[in-house]
Amino acid sequence: MNLTKKLISTHLITGKMVPGEVIELKIDQVLSEDATGTLVMLELEALGAREVKAEICAQYVDHNVLRADHRNGDDHIFLESACRKYGIWYSRPGNGISHPVHMSCFGIPGKTILGADSHTCSAGSLAMLAIGTGGIEAALAMMGFPLSLVMPKILGIRLEGELRPWVSAKDVILELLRRYTLKGCWNKIVEYHGPGLKKLTAMDRHVIANMGQEMGAVTSVFPSDNQVRLFLRQQSREEEFVELIADENATYDEEANIDLSKIEPMIALPSRPDKVVKVHEVEGRDIFQSYIGSSANPGLRDFSIPARIVDGLIIPHSVAFDINPSSRQLLHELTHSGDLEKLLGSGAHLHDTGCGGCIGMGQAPASGHNSLRTVPRNYPGRSGTKEDSVYLCSPETATASALRGKITDPRNLDIDYPNFKEPEYLMDMRPLIQPPQEIPVKVELKKGPNIKPLPVLRKMLSVISGPILLKLEDNVSTDEIIPGGTEVLPYWSNIPELSRYTFPKIDDSFYKRALGTKGDIFLIAGENLGHGSSREHAAIALHYLGVRCVIAKSVAQLYRKNLIDNGILIFTFDNQSDFDNFNQGDELRIFDLSSCTRGNMSLELENLTQGRKTWLKSDLSEREVKIIKFGGRINYTKAIINKMKKGH
Amino acid sequence: MNLTKKLISTHLITGKMVPGEVIELKIDQVLSEDATGTLVMLELEALGAREVKAEICAQYVDHNVLRADHRNGDDHIFLESACRKYGIWYSRPGNGISHPVHMSCFGIPGKTILGADSHTCSAGSLAMLAIGTGGIEAALAMMGFPLSLVMPKILGIRLEGELRPWVSAKDVILELLRRYTLKGCWNKIVEYHGPGLKKLTAMDRHVIANMGQEMGAVTSVFPSDNQVRLFLRQQSREEEFVELIADENATYDEEANIDLSKIEPMIALPSRPDKVVKVHEVEGRDIFQSYIGSSANPGLRDFSIPARIVDGLIIPHSVAFDINPSSRQLLHELTHSGDLEKLLGSGAHLHDTGCGGCIGMGQAPASGHNSLRTVPRNYPGRSGTKEDSVYLCSPETATASALRGKITDPRNLDIDYPNFKEPEYLMDMRPLIQPPQEIPVKVELKKGPNIKPLPVLRKMLSVISGPILLKLEDNVSTDEIIPGGTEVLPYWSNIPELSRYTFPKIDDSFYKRALGTKGDIFLIAGENLGHGSSREHAAIALHYLGVRCVIAKSVAQLYRKNLIDNGILIFTFDNQSDFDNFNQGDELRIFDLSSCTRGNMSLELENLTQGRKTWLKSDLSEREVKIIKFGGRINYTKAIINKMKKGH
Repeated sequence: MNLTKKLISTHLITGKMVPGEVIELKIDQVLSEDATGTLVMLELEALGAREVKAEICAQYVDHNVLRADHRNGDDHIFLESACRKYGIWYSRPGNGISHPVHMSCFGIPGKTILGADSHTCSAGSLAMLAIGTGGIEAALAMMGFPLSLVMPKILGIRLEGELRPWVSAKDVILELLRRYTLKGCWNKIVEYHGPGLKKLTAMDRHVIANMGQEMGAVTSVFPSDNQVRLFLRQQSREEEFVELIADENATYDEEANIDLSKIEPMIALPSRPDKVVKVHEVEGRDIFQSYIGSSANPGLRDFSIPARIVDGLIIPHSVAFDINPSSRQLLHELTHSGDLEKLLGSGAHLHDTGCGGCIGMGQAPASGHNSLRTVPRNYPGRSGTKEDSVYLCSPETATASALRGKITDPRNLDIDYPNFKEPEYLMDMRPLIQPPQEIPVKVELKKGPNIKPLPVLRKMLSVISGPILLKLEDNVSTDEIIPGGTEVLPYWSNIPELSRYTFPKIDDSFYKRALGTKGDIFLIAGENLGHGSSREHAAIALHYLGVRCVIAKSVAQLYRKNLIDNGILIFTFDNQSDFDNFNQGDELRIFDLSSCTRGNMSLELENLTQGRKTWLKSDLSEREVKIIKFGGRINYTKAIINKMKKGH
Repeated sequence: MNLTKKLISTHLITGKMVPGEVIELKIDQVLSEDATGTLVMLELEALGAREVKAEICAQYVDHNVLRADHRNGDDHIFLESACRKYGIWYSRPGNGISHPVHMSCFGIPGKTILGADSHTCSAGSLAMLAIGTGGIEAALAMMGFPLSLVMPKILGIRLEGELRPWVSAKDVILELLRRYTLKGCWNKIVEYHGPGLKKLTAMDRHVIANMGQEMGAVTSVFPSDNQVRLFLRQQSREEEFVELIADENATYDEEANIDLSKIEPMIALPSRPDKVVKVHEVEGRDIFQSYIGSSANPGLRDFSIPARIVDGLIIPHSVAFDINPSSRQLLHELTHSGDLEKLLGSGAHLHDTGCGGCIGMGQAPASGHNSLRTVPRNYPGRSGTKEDSVYLCSPETATASALRGKITDPRNLDIDYPNFKEPEYLMDMRPLIQPPQEIPVKVELKKGPNIKPLPVLRKMLSVISGPILLKLEDNVSTDEIIPGGTEVLPYWSNIPELSRYTFPKIDDSFYKRALGTKGDIFLIAGENLGHGSSREHAAIALHYLGVRCVIAKSVAQLYRKNLIDNGILIFTFDNQSDFDNFNQGDELRIFDLSSCTRGNMSLELENLTQGRKTWLKSDLSEREVKIIKFGGRINYTKAIINKMKKGH
């Protein structure tokens, strides 16, 4: 058996490990961050939860730490009270990004983890089965409900050789993105194996696992070997180490190879993570900013190596060399080791610990200027600057470019590659995370004026009919459906207000037009709709505005789940070229929904405007259709809970 | 002679050192920060400047370092290009707050300094004559024009005794604010002397000099003694030390005493810096936030003592203990000394170096919760939260309160007062400040799309007539005229857009009503109009919207100058009770302006609505009237320059 199957088999509740079959898995750990977590807590409340049941549930505050006004602080107070109420660990602002902090404090090889954040997959670095999801799924997993998913294919990637100086884990995942593109790993789990792993630390593996999300992978899995043991020892948790590796001669559904010694410094061009070229191909372009940080490069080496590169040198006065520590532990160690002094001496600008500019909370580039970032995503405008020009690269490339003020292949710096050795022990952050109360006491949820109740979602009627309010092209990410950034993120606890910001970059009239629409709203979309962030807001806000049906060439997996969980029907075209036959404004009708009790249905759609009919397909399972008919997962689950209660 | 007179006499160009007489002073150094500096640079451009003439001109970037979108970054690029063009030192984002950085890098005892920031007075700590002003005055001083001011009275405050443990410089200035209130030091320079100075370091003196601004003082002056020598040595600039002390038996226009040993921990209640009580009087109130930082408490001890208080302890999970380093040098030393590790270990949240939450750029408190801050101001809403509740206190009180989660007199902590000794040497920040080019080359100003040209201000007509568009109460600060904060600060380079945010907290219809007004706009105000920040935006935006005349019980000095420099007439009531006779909406007319060529005039105002006449006074000098008639300082100065050119 390969390692992925071992992880699945030890958590399998129902179903068979056959690609395409629906399986149910026991979830051991659940995390959420503040941007998604306020809805998770509201969902726990709506579901009538009493106390969470998963082994570890942890709530991090890492996105909305800017506090431009009362709203972020109100969210923190709400989250802290909810954590006490439901029995969840609460990690305060300043502790850092959920993924590296969770890995340091709670990561255990062999466990499953679900997280209301798409980069939860980073925990694959510790041989965890780690999946990002929407808030409702996370809330349900906290309550002990199993995760239902379609058994993915397993892509085994064999790593050979050793990275050369100036090349690091980020270059590996960028090379994979170049090969596989944004959709290349749909319905797949990527399992890494082979001799090349030996020198990749747990944090290097985090870098690779993190951006597996960008290839559309369900998750990525690394073995638990001596590198993981060293990591856990560093966290004073060596006793939690378990060796977990694929059996010898394990097989995979698909296989690929990478020779690490052949990887060169890579860079993703604006504005997609898979537009990857070699750094030397774009060398010399002027930059305004070089940004170190985020969950994509959260390791100590990702900051210490830049520090040691710039030691004694000075970054040009006009370049913003922005350092975003990923965790309190990391910042503590940078301080302790002297690396922070080196960065400060070079002119670097140290920011607070958290997600920062990666989700557009500050540090936006100047207009018309290039920004190099070690973050995982560069979708248009995500940086906060409308017409931005963001490149993704390794810390080595970002630092070399900062020093020169232009994109620079780090191998062209005339210095030796710095030495870096992981320290044996690091600061223990757990005392700074509030544990669940041992004896639960009644806690009142503290809701500031911006924290609004979840909208009540409507049941699906048997006939839906109304206009195509928007026709979208390929690769519209959730960032483009509901953005982050300083203007919008503070509304993520307030769906009525948030819905005003639906599709702001694509069609800023959408909100008003939706309000003015009678009947049900249809959306037409191209390929890969809703890739990127796990934000269920991009589904709830649509339902809130009256969207009942999405017809797309394809829908990204996490978003597909969020649409279903929020009561929105999803169809694909029977014939992809039918996409061209639909125009924005066309009035559509589906009137056969009463028969949709089975999964994998086909269905006829009437275009009233054009007077023609089109066949649609759906891969919705029977259960998913039920969820949609109930008006989403909360209604559905409440009905089940009520039924169970009555059964007793 | 007292020290103040020595400083003035060595820079006196015209006039006599008699209180009330107009004097002109040579200005040696000029600073600006980014929020005010973009206008300074636009003003240099409008004035046709070629190269600055003052000994040191320095531009800091400390306010707008958040970069929520392209606008802040565009400002930085513009400032950097302007510094190269005009020969100004450019301090990049991350170097820190202008006042402590300037003090460390360029402060020289005996020099005069003008700054486009009201807390420029902090440099009085080094026996500099340091005055905050609007941007135009700063631009003119950079160009070598003298500063014209009315010779102030000199208030000598004799310090005796020694501060007890847990009491520090901030408590001294809070005690003074309690005594003198916001207006108590108008037209005065406060000179500190006496044996109590011996143990007050230069940075302690900075704390006291900084908030002299809050008492309305023109500036504050401390002697240059051994403490200043030690400070300069710490900065590797001991050779720039000059001893400067008042003559023995020097006299002052007014005198006062403070026994330092009797000062207790003090706190200013929301929402005015002079609402000061003893901490123990309000002990026990719950807090959401404890904030360390700003130009009011920028010293190493202001961070190291908190670090040593919390060493080994943990701040409650629900309290935001926000640490805002004041300078790169300070952060470097906190890192080096291990104090930063202590703070991080306690759960403190480290933010980036700069003004941060003090000017509402992040770190806003949650709604309905108390915030304790070591900053200089707590005007309503300045924190970013509309109905905020901000207290001002010492680092000791803030830290003790953070530990307990409620307002706490630090003497009630059961620990010993930490030891702190200033290090002998600190990091030299000067290599990280871009020097003026030795050989000036032609530089193009780089203006992003949000950097708009200065509005052209209108000449004053001989008749002005129009409505009272707004009637204001006492103590309206410049923060309430044009706010800072994340929403508005990015527009400070764009007056047309900025003017939309005039009086947002007092009357958010003002902008629209002003646009709809035909004729000249009058404002009526109570006492102390425009106290606080030096932002000339609070005058330019008014002129831009059509305000031509302000009639007030009294106008704060810095604001008075900004109004004049932006072509707005200022009158006071001949009889203060006349204030009550004016109603918002009344149509007024002044039609005798052609005779206003002399200073200190009286004038009859016609209230057309009420059909009555009222006598107004003005203390405008003849020159000031001329400036207003020209439509402000730029037009006036350009006329002078043109005249000089023609003369040759």
